[in-house]
Amino acid sequence: MYSQLLQYSNALMREIKPFFAMEILARAKELERSGKDIIHLEIGEPDFPAPPLVTQAAMEFLGKGMVGYTPAAGIPELREALAAYYEDRYGVRVSPARIFVTPGASGAFLLTLAMTVMPGRKVLLSDPGYPCYANLVRLFGGADALVPVGVDTNFHLTPELVLKHGDRQTEGSIVASPSNPTGTVMTPQILERLVGLLESRGGFLISDEIYHGLEYSGQSPTALEFSSDVFVVNSFSKYFGMTGWRVGWAIVPEQFTEQAERLAQNLFISAPTPGQYAALAALSPDCREELERRRRLFGERRDFLMEGLRRLGFGLPAHPEGAFYIYADCSAFTRDSSDLALRILEDVGVAITPGKDFGAHFPEKFVRFSYTTSIPRLSAAVVRLRDFLAGGKLGN
Amino acid sequence: MYSQLLQYSNALMREIKPFFAMEILARAKELERSGKDIIHLEIGEPDFPAPPLVTQAAMEFLGKGMVGYTPAAGIPELREALAAYYEDRYGVRVSPARIFVTPGASGAFLLTLAMTVMPGRKVLLSDPGYPCYANLVRLFGGADALVPVGVDTNFHLTPELVLKHGDRQTEGSIVASPSNPTGTVMTPQILERLVGLLESRGGFLISDEIYHGLEYSGQSPTALEFSSDVFVVNSFSKYFGMTGWRVGWAIVPEQFTEQAERLAQNLFISAPTPGQYAALAALSPDCREELERRRRLFGERRDFLMEGLRRLGFGLPAHPEGAFYIYADCSAFTRDSSDLALRILEDVGVAITPGKDFGAHFPEKFVRFSYTTSIPRLSAAVVRLRDFLAGGKLGN
Repeated sequence: MYSQLLQYSNALMREIKPFFAMEILARAKELERSGKDIIHLEIGEPDFPAPPLVTQAAMEFLGKGMVGYTPAAGIPELREALAAYYEDRYGVRVSPARIFVTPGASGAFLLTLAMTVMPGRKVLLSDPGYPCYANLVRLFGGADALVPVGVDTNFHLTPELVLKHGDRQTEGSIVASPSNPTGTVMTPQILERLVGLLESRGGFLISDEIYHGLEYSGQSPTALEFSSDVFVVNSFSKYFGMTGWRVGWAIVPEQFTEQAERLAQNLFISAPTPGQYAALAALSPDCREELERRRRLFGERRDFLMEGLRRLGFGLPAHPEGAFYIYADCSAFTRDSSDLALRILEDVGVAITPGKDFGAHFPEKFVRFSYTTSIPRLSAAVVRLRDFLAGGKLGN
Repeated sequence: MYSQLLQYSNALMREIKPFFAMEILARAKELERSGKDIIHLEIGEPDFPAPPLVTQAAMEFLGKGMVGYTPAAGIPELREALAAYYEDRYGVRVSPARIFVTPGASGAFLLTLAMTVMPGRKVLLSDPGYPCYANLVRLFGGADALVPVGVDTNFHLTPELVLKHGDRQTEGSIVASPSNPTGTVMTPQILERLVGLLESRGGFLISDEIYHGLEYSGQSPTALEFSSDVFVVNSFSKYFGMTGWRVGWAIVPEQFTEQAERLAQNLFISAPTPGQYAALAALSPDCREELERRRRLFGERRDFLMEGLRRLGFGLPAHPEGAFYIYADCSAFTRDSSDLALRILEDVGVAITPGKDFGAHFPEKFVRFSYTTSIPRLSAAVVRLRDFLAGGKLGN
C-alpha cells in the first residue's frame, strides 16, 4: 500500500529532519518517570506563566459562553491594539489592515511563506538558525540556501553575505534578531542595510521578531522602521509568555493584504478565539510592567549562566544579548555535541539541545542552553556539569 | 517594489478565490450597523455554544496558571479519549499513536496534504465541494481535478467517477460525507468501494468526517471501518460546537505517523492548549447527551426549512441528511445565484451563500442555506423570502 506515495513522502522527510530537542525531551521525561531529577535547559519556552491579567481576561471571555470563529485576520480590537503597540514601542505607524493575527508565529510563517516562496527559487537563511524556516520553504516548493555565519558577523546574515551567496535564483531572505539559537542581536545598521539591499533587488525580507522584548542591552528596531515593504513575524509566545495559547501575528506590505486575507481563510480560518482575547489583555500597560520585571530576571539568569559556563571551559563566541539562549562551544570537551548532550542527560540529568538542530555549520561544536528556569536550578545545573566534566567520561 | 513577486503572488491568488460568503458576511454586518435586522443563513458555524461542561473544563485548566506547549501530536489524554471514541461510536480500534490533534480541521488538512500531495499530481475532488481542498492542494504544488457531481450520484464521488476522471497523474482523492455544501450523505457501500478502489491503485483517500454526528437518518461509517490505510480528518468545531477553540484531529496510516509528527512540529508546534483540555471534556458522556439533544434540534430545523423552501419554489435535488446545509436550486428565480443572494440580502435582510463558493459546476443555479439559527428565525426568513419573491424584482 502507498509504495509510491511513501517513497515521495520519505524523500520529503529526509529533508525535514526531526528536532533532536524532542528526542532529548522524550528521553528526559522517561528518566523523570523513573524517578530521576532533570534540569530542563533544552526547551524554547518561558517558565513564567502568562501574567494573571491575561488568564483573567480569557476566563471573562469564556464566561460569556460563545467561542466562535473570528474574522480570518483576527478580532479588530487586537489588530488595533497591535498597531498602537508598534507606535508606542517603535514609533512606527502600521495600519491595522496590514496586521494579521495568526495561530502562533507558526501560522504567521505559513501565511508569509505561502505568499512569497516561488517554486524552485532560493531563500537565504543563516546557519545556525531556526530549523522550521528551511522546512517550510521546502514544503512550499522553494529551496533553502543556508549561509554559514559565525563570530565575524555576530552569527547573523549581512548585506555582504547576501551578495556573496545570492544569485539570480534568489528571491528573498528570513532574518531573526535576537537569534535562536545564538541569542545574538543584529545591529540596527546591518538590518537597515539588509532591508535596503533586498528592496533594491526586488527580493522579500521576512523579519522574525519573536524574541523582541527579551533584550538585555537596549531595544532592537523592527524592520518596519526602515521600510513598509517588509514582512514581519511575531508572537505572544515568548516575551508575553503565552506559548500554549497559539497567538502570533504577521505584518505584510500593503499590496499583499488581500492575498493574506484569502490565505488565512484557507490555512487556518482564524486564530484561536480565547487566545486572541487573552492577547488583548497582554498588551495592556499593567501586564507590560510585569513583563518588564520578567525581562530583567531573564537578564540576571543569562549573566549567571554565562559566567558558570565560562568557568567550566565552554567557549562563548556568540554574545547573547537577547532571547533566552546561550549557544556554547563545547569543542574543548567533545568532537560530537549530540553525543555530549545525550551523555550529560544520562549521567547528570541536565537536558540541553545539540547544535545539529540548527544547521550544518559546525553543529558538532555547539550546544544550546535555554535559561528558562530559576537561578537556583541553573546553579545546580552548573554544579552537575562540573561533576560530569570532572568525571573523566569524555573522549570515548 | 516586488514586481516579480507580486506577479507570481497574483497568479497564485487568481487560483485561490476569495470566499463570496465572506463578502456577504461583511455586507450583512454593514447593514446591521446601519440598523437593519439580518437573518444569518450564510455561515457554517453552529449557533449553540459549546456545552457548559466544556467551558468549565477550560476554565479549570486556566485556573492552574500555566498554558504551555503540548506535544506536537496533542496531549496524550485527548489522543486516548479519541481512540476510545472511535471504539465506542464506530466499533473501530485506532491506536492513539495514529491520532494527531491539530488546530482545527484546517490544521489536519495542512498535515495530511503536506504528506500526500506530490508536485504536479492530481487530486480528485467533487464539484460542488468545500473550496479549501482545492486551494490547499495547489498551495502544496498539486493540481486539483474537479469532478462534476449531481443528483444522479447524490452529489458525491463514486468509484465509477473516479475511474472515469482519474488518469496516471491522479494520486488520490478527498471525500466528505455529510457534504458541505449539499448535506448529502454517501452510502456505506459507495464509501467502502471508493476505499477499496483507491487502495487497489495505491492512491490516497482523505475522508473529511467533520460533519459526522450531525446526521438525521442514521449514522455514517468512518472510512476507517473499511481500511486502516486511509487518512481521516475531523474536528470539534461542528458537532461539538467548538469552532473558535480551533481543535481538530487527523488520523493517519501507521506508516505515516513519523512524518505526521515532524510536520506537526513545523506546521503548528502544537494545537491550542486550552482548547485541547476543553475538547477532552466534550468527549465525556454528559456532554454527548447535550450534543444529541442539539442534533435533534438541527434535524427539526432542517425539516422546517426544507418544507418552507419547497413551498417557495426552490428546487431541492440534493436531499440533505446531514451537516446543517441545504443546497437549493434557485434557477426558477434567476440565472445568477450570486446576484440573487446579494439582492435577497439588500432587499429583505436574509444572508445566504451563492453556489460559486463551492465550484464551477452550475454554481449559478444554486444557493446554500445554513440552518444554524432558531426555528422562529428560520420562519421569519421564509416569510421574508416570500415577500422578496413576490416583489417582482426578479429577472432584471
